[in-house]
Amino acid sequence: MSDTPVVVDEAIRRLLADLHPLRTAPTPLTDALGRVLGEDLHAPFPLPQWTNAAMDGYAVRGEEIRGASPVQPITLTVIGEIAAGAVATHRIGSGEAMRIFTGGRVPEGADSVIRQEDSDRGAERVTITSERDVGRNVRMVGSDVEAGALVLTRATRIGPGEISLLSALTLTDPPLHRQPRVAILSSGDEVARPGEIDAVRAGARLADSNSPTLAALVTLAGGVPIILGPIRDDPVALAAAVRGTGEVDLILTVGGVSVGDHDHVPAVMDSLGAEVLFRRVRLRPGGPTTAARLPDGRLWIGLPGNPVSAMVTFTLFAHPVIRHLAGEVPPVPRPCMARLGTAVARHATLELFVRVSAQPLSPDGVLVVEPTGGVGSARMTTMRGARYLVRIPPGPGRAEAGTLLEATPFP
Amino acid sequence: MSDTPVVVDEAIRRLLADLHPLRTAPTPLTDALGRVLGEDLHAPFPLPQWTNAAMDGYAVRGEEIRGASPVQPITLTVIGEIAAGAVATHRIGSGEAMRIFTGGRVPEGADSVIRQEDSDRGAERVTITSERDVGRNVRMVGSDVEAGALVLTRATRIGPGEISLLSALTLTDPPLHRQPRVAILSSGDEVARPGEIDAVRAGARLADSNSPTLAALVTLAGGVPIILGPIRDDPVALAAAVRGTGEVDLILTVGGVSVGDHDHVPAVMDSLGAEVLFRRVRLRPGGPTTAARLPDGRLWIGLPGNPVSAMVTFTLFAHPVIRHLAGEVPPVPRPCMARLGTAVARHATLELFVRVSAQPLSPDGVLVVEPTGGVGSARMTTMRGARYLVRIPPGPGRAEAGTLLEATPFP
Repeated sequence: MSDTPVVVDEAIRRLLADLHPLRTAPTPLTDALGRVLGEDLHAPFPLPQWTNAAMDGYAVRGEEIRGASPVQPITLTVIGEIAAGAVATHRIGSGEAMRIFTGGRVPEGADSVIRQEDSDRGAERVTITSERDVGRNVRMVGSDVEAGALVLTRATRIGPGEISLLSALTLTDPPLHRQPRVAILSSGDEVARPGEIDAVRAGARLADSNSPTLAALVTLAGGVPIILGPIRDDPVALAAAVRGTGEVDLILTVGGVSVGDHDHVPAVMDSLGAEVLFRRVRLRPGGPTTAARLPDGRLWIGLPGNPVSAMVTFTLFAHPVIRHLAGEVPPVPRPCMARLGTAVARHATLELFVRVSAQPLSPDGVLVVEPTGGVGSARMTTMRGARYLVRIPPGPGRAEAGTLLEATPFP
Repeated sequence: MSDTPVVVDEAIRRLLADLHPLRTAPTPLTDALGRVLGEDLHAPFPLPQWTNAAMDGYAVRGEEIRGASPVQPITLTVIGEIAAGAVATHRIGSGEAMRIFTGGRVPEGADSVIRQEDSDRGAERVTITSERDVGRNVRMVGSDVEAGALVLTRATRIGPGEISLLSALTLTDPPLHRQPRVAILSSGDEVARPGEIDAVRAGARLADSNSPTLAALVTLAGGVPIILGPIRDDPVALAAAVRGTGEVDLILTVGGVSVGDHDHVPAVMDSLGAEVLFRRVRLRPGGPTTAARLPDGRLWIGLPGNPVSAMVTFTLFAHPVIRHLAGEVPPVPRPCMARLGTAVARHATLELFVRVSAQPLSPDGVLVVEPTGGVGSARMTTMRGARYLVRIPPGPGRAEAGTLLEATPFP
């Protein structure tokens, strides 16, 4: 392991290389939103479950109303009504119809549902004045999902559409990956401990803004945040805190990764026998980001302590790790392309990740983005209203206004 | 109130016309994610709170190292070190420097922080070999946020960037709008009651897929879902259920809005003295969507019972109502533009909302979308993997492949 900085994509590759999704367990649908399916699921029965009417109207044998029109109406005998959920006891015979409502089971013998607007809505006898619904308005059993068909594949993230299918198929305890538990350990002697709010207001301490912010980011990534800091700027305290994280799946420390005398993360990683994956990344903001794999296999990502750098590097490095632990494959959100609204000076050798807001769309359908502030990490207000991180490749001069660039959604 | 169908935008306009965000209350930051600020907030103190170093290095008087280079190094006396959070007790005088770390308070007299890479890192005396940091690496107090400045405006939705600012400024109990409580009342005699899973598997009943799906959609919209169904297809039961919804802010019923004999929603709205806002909307799927304002001012949206129609009409009509109750202004998510990958037949007189998946980006930066299935509501699988609803205006012929159309994100 050298101290040579790696590029962003290589850093992500190293983090994900030996990472495996967490175990799965049957999970009630009420807890499923945003979680990830651990197995392929097949339909225990077909959808629709029965051949049913797509309209309110009359179930008929289509051939018998061919040619029906206002001047040549056709009259049938209504032999009954099909209540919702009920099964018709009679087969539709010649000259017969049954009243039926949307979703009702189409009786044997019928192949068409004539919409009621094309009838006189008769109760005993019905007169039909159009042939347009011959062979129509019938949803065949299994026409959406056949029994036994693959309905959802493993690694699918569960959203409302998936909940709809799972509940319709009574798959109410699907096998989902466990949610990653993520320890958040901020550090800094200048950072206020909980309750020291007066010291912050007096200008003697900094608030620990990183812990609640990273907790929100972990939650949005689908993890369970566990705030364990802030801790002191001290290698012994840091090592003890990392050792004491307990049943967590990922450790995020914040601060202590620069090259100054008080930046203990790399030394403590070594002292714990961790395999360091990278010590610097060729980007701005967030260059000092450091990562290691502990002897027990868990990842430890050391984020920079600057709040902007911490948010940016969480999004680039910790977010895909959490998504992959949660079961998503591939875990890296595919960026979209966006058009830069204002020129930004490039860096000669580093990738820049600029926080941008999304502007009203240009008429040609391309997302136009506008930097929320400077490129560096000094201004917390650059995260206010930031919707994307735009990636500006290294090089001379500027990324000009109008350039199409990769934009990673910011949660 | 006539039964004339309204267009989608008019239906949304009527829903939002007399709607007001719910009351606000001081809310802990740990509960703030996704909620909406009820007041403008101003900074109680500046950010940064003190003038601080942007680098690890040496605080100096910049004028004194002008001209420093490897061949003409300049040596200063190190009069101390500024620990994190500490205030220097000495002013930097002529020929002096202090060791400082990122975030440390820049002492009186200094206006520059020389990065340690440009020095011999001396402890007693330091030799500096570059002038590039003259006047640099100092973050001035208040340079990000001045004391008293407006930091967040009312109606801002709280994300990680906002949590970062609020916690840095010790605004840990901001005034947030209450989350809307949303009653979900599915109906249908053919729908299984809780526990009737065997009847569903035997093909005798339909699972109540609408309740869990709408609960997920309410959650994603920022509301609190309260499942009160399924109830029977009966106007007395429906009226009693709506009357018994209690402390909810919005009522969603599912089913009972078509023109069939068993569709009781409009009649029950009338019987409860509700002001009907619209009885049909000129769209597909979801035309029978009905909405009313109850005498106590609460909205009741009657969604169609078909699962696909319910999801589409929730997204178009209920989602913005929930967002506005939650405090967002304007509440309608701005659609993006997307390029249709495959031609879709238009409807002569109705707007179509087609479920589409998002494809890898075309090189020109335009989102390309592909229908997940048919235009109608018959197939639940069209919601699987759906990322947007694409709006196809009425007209003759087809919306051709390559057409740019409005796409509303599907949660």
